[in-house]
Amino acid sequence: MSRVHNFSAGPAVLPLSVVEQIQAALPDFQGCGLGLMEISHRSAAFDGVHRMAETRLRRILSVPDDYKVLFLQGGASLQFHMVPLNLLTPGESADFIVTGIWTKKALVEARRSHAGQAIWSGEEGNYRRIPETVTPSGNATYLHYTTNNTIYGTQFKATPEAGALPLVADMSSDICSRPVDIARHAVVFAGAQKNLGPSGVTAVILSPWALEKAAGDLNPMLDYRLQVEKRGLFNTPNTLGIFALERVLAWVEDQGGLTATTEQNLSKANALYTQIDRTGFWTGHAAEGCRSDMNVAFRSPSADLDAAFVAQANAAGLMGLKGHRSVGGLRASIYNACPPGSVDALVSFMADFEAKNG
Amino acid sequence: MSRVHNFSAGPAVLPLSVVEQIQAALPDFQGCGLGLMEISHRSAAFDGVHRMAETRLRRILSVPDDYKVLFLQGGASLQFHMVPLNLLTPGESADFIVTGIWTKKALVEARRSHAGQAIWSGEEGNYRRIPETVTPSGNATYLHYTTNNTIYGTQFKATPEAGALPLVADMSSDICSRPVDIARHAVVFAGAQKNLGPSGVTAVILSPWALEKAAGDLNPMLDYRLQVEKRGLFNTPNTLGIFALERVLAWVEDQGGLTATTEQNLSKANALYTQIDRTGFWTGHAAEGCRSDMNVAFRSPSADLDAAFVAQANAAGLMGLKGHRSVGGLRASIYNACPPGSVDALVSFMADFEAKNG
Repeated sequence: MSRVHNFSAGPAVLPLSVVEQIQAALPDFQGCGLGLMEISHRSAAFDGVHRMAETRLRRILSVPDDYKVLFLQGGASLQFHMVPLNLLTPGESADFIVTGIWTKKALVEARRSHAGQAIWSGEEGNYRRIPETVTPSGNATYLHYTTNNTIYGTQFKATPEAGALPLVADMSSDICSRPVDIARHAVVFAGAQKNLGPSGVTAVILSPWALEKAAGDLNPMLDYRLQVEKRGLFNTPNTLGIFALERVLAWVEDQGGLTATTEQNLSKANALYTQIDRTGFWTGHAAEGCRSDMNVAFRSPSADLDAAFVAQANAAGLMGLKGHRSVGGLRASIYNACPPGSVDALVSFMADFEAKNG
Repeated sequence: MSRVHNFSAGPAVLPLSVVEQIQAALPDFQGCGLGLMEISHRSAAFDGVHRMAETRLRRILSVPDDYKVLFLQGGASLQFHMVPLNLLTPGESADFIVTGIWTKKALVEARRSHAGQAIWSGEEGNYRRIPETVTPSGNATYLHYTTNNTIYGTQFKATPEAGALPLVADMSSDICSRPVDIARHAVVFAGAQKNLGPSGVTAVILSPWALEKAAGDLNPMLDYRLQVEKRGLFNTPNTLGIFALERVLAWVEDQGGLTATTEQNLSKANALYTQIDRTGFWTGHAAEGCRSDMNVAFRSPSADLDAAFVAQANAAGLMGLKGHRSVGGLRASIYNACPPGSVDALVSFMADFEAKNG
C-alpha cells in the first residue's frame, strides 16, 4: 500500500490513522463480534458513537448548549431546501451573499419554496472576491452565506456583520478548520466529505430560534424540529459515515483542536501562496484578502501548461490538481487532513515545473 | 477477530468477503494510491464502480432497458415523500395496501403533499396478514405496497394484481432476495441496509411512465427527472455506500443470482419455521401463507421467557433477536447475507431452550 498526495476537492483525503481505525472496526466493532456496518443504529454500541460525535463537534466548535446538532443525509444541497422550508413562513424572504454557484443554488431553492434575494454577488468577476461589508435588504428573515468557496478558492475571513439578522452558514468546505462564532448563527451545515469524513453525512447545527421558526406539517425527513426530537434517528442514518466523522473529530482534538488546525492550515496555505506569488509565473484566482486556506485556485501562463502540470503532477504522485471546469487552471485542496508534507511536495513540484517552463 | 451470529433487522450482516474487500479498498483503492472514501465522485475510478453497481442491479433484477436506476440518500422515508411529489399532480391520489407502519407512514406523506387512501389495512390484527387480493379504489394514480414487512415478518408471495394501475413497491427488506417482475412496477425503492449494503444508500428504479409523470419545479434533490439527468450526481453521493452495494451485488451474482438466493433463503426460512411449528412451544406472529423468508417474528410462551431467550442467545453469540417493540417477542432477520450456519445455530439454540423451559 502506497498512498499518494491527495489534493481532491472532496471527497477528500482523510487522516490515515482514521482510515485504519475504520478498517479495524469493519469486521468486528469494539470486539462485539459484529461489524461496524452491521450493527443496529439503535444499539448501545452505535448510540455511543453517535453521542460522542455530537459531543466532540460541540466541544471543538464551542456550540452553545441550547443549540441542537444533527447528522443527516443529503448533503448541503438538501439543506438548501430544508433551510427555507423550515425558517421561512409564507411571505417571508431570505438574503444571500452570492460568492459562488453553491450559494446561487441555495438562492434558487429559497425562491422555489418562498422568496430570496442576492444582496451581493461576485458573479461578474467569476467569484474572485468576498465582500468586505454587506447591507441586508431590510426585509429578510435570515442571511445565507458560504464561509468558503471550494471552486474559486475564496473564504470569508470574518463572520459577516448583519446586525440582528440571523445568519445561515454553509460551512461544507471549512468547518472545523478554524474557530467560528456559532452563537452568531441560526443554522450551520456542512457536508462531511471535505473536512469531517466520507460523503453521505451532513452535520447540521440549529439555534433555538431556528427550531422555533420551523413551520410544522413538513415531511419528517425535512423537518428540523422532528429530526431534533428523534435525534436524527427518524430513519436509519449513515452509521459508518457517523463513525468516521466521530473518528475525524477525535483526530482534530488529538491534534490540539481548532488552535492547532488554524495554525497548520495557515502554514500550509502560506507556503502555497508564497510559491504562487514568488515570480509572475503563477496567477491566483482569488483576490487579495479573499484567499482560502482550504482551496488554492491558481493557474500557469497557459491552458496547455495547466494540462501539462496536471499530467506531470499525477505521474509524480500529486493527484486531484485540475481546477473546476467553471474556473479552469489548477486547484489544490488542502483541508485539515492534508498533511503538510503533501503541500511541501506540491511547492517543490511547482518550483521545478516553473524552472522547466518559465 | 471473531464474528458472532448476526440476526439484526438492519443495518444487517454483510458477506464477510465483502467486508474484507471494503477493508482492503479503504487506504488504497485499486492500487491508485488514494483511499476508497477519498476519491472524487466524478473520478474515472468511482464512475466505474457506480456504473457497475447499476449494471449488476439491472442484471440481477432483469430491470427493463427503458427503466432508470439511481442510488440516492435519505432511505425509504425520503422516497415516501419523493414518490407522491413526483408522481401525483394536484387533485390526484394514491392507493395503499397498509401491511405495516412503514406503509402507513408512506400514506401519511402522500396525504401531506397530495392525497391517498388505504384500500386494505392489516392494522387491526397487528399486521399479521397480507391480503390475498385487493381492490383498487378506482380513482388512484398508483398503488403503493411494501413487499416485505420487517417488523411483523410478513411478505407478499406474489406481486399484487391491480390491473393497469402502476405499482410502487418499497422493497427495502427483500430486494434481490428472489425474482420479482420489475416491469409491472412504476417505482421500486429500497434502503440498502438490509439486503444491499450499509445504511445511507437507497436504490431507486423508475419506469418511463414515472419519469414522464414527474411534476417539474421540484427541489433538485427530490426531483426524479433531474436526478436521472444527473445520474444521481447532482451532488456528492455516498461513495463508500455505493461501492459496498456494488460488492454485495457482485457477491449475489457469484452465488448464482436470484435462483440461488431464493433457494437458500427458502431453505433458511423453512428450517426456522419448522422449528417454530414443531411443538406448541413457539408461536409465529405472521399468519400462514404470509410468512416472510427475510424476517421471522415469533415468541416463546411468555414475555419473561422471551427476555431470557434474548439474554442467553446473546451470551451464546446469537445477536439481534429481540422483537420490535410494536410486536414484542423475538425476531430473526435472515437476509441474503445471513449464513445458513447462523440459522442452524439458532435452530439448535431454540431446541435447547425449549428442552430446558418447555
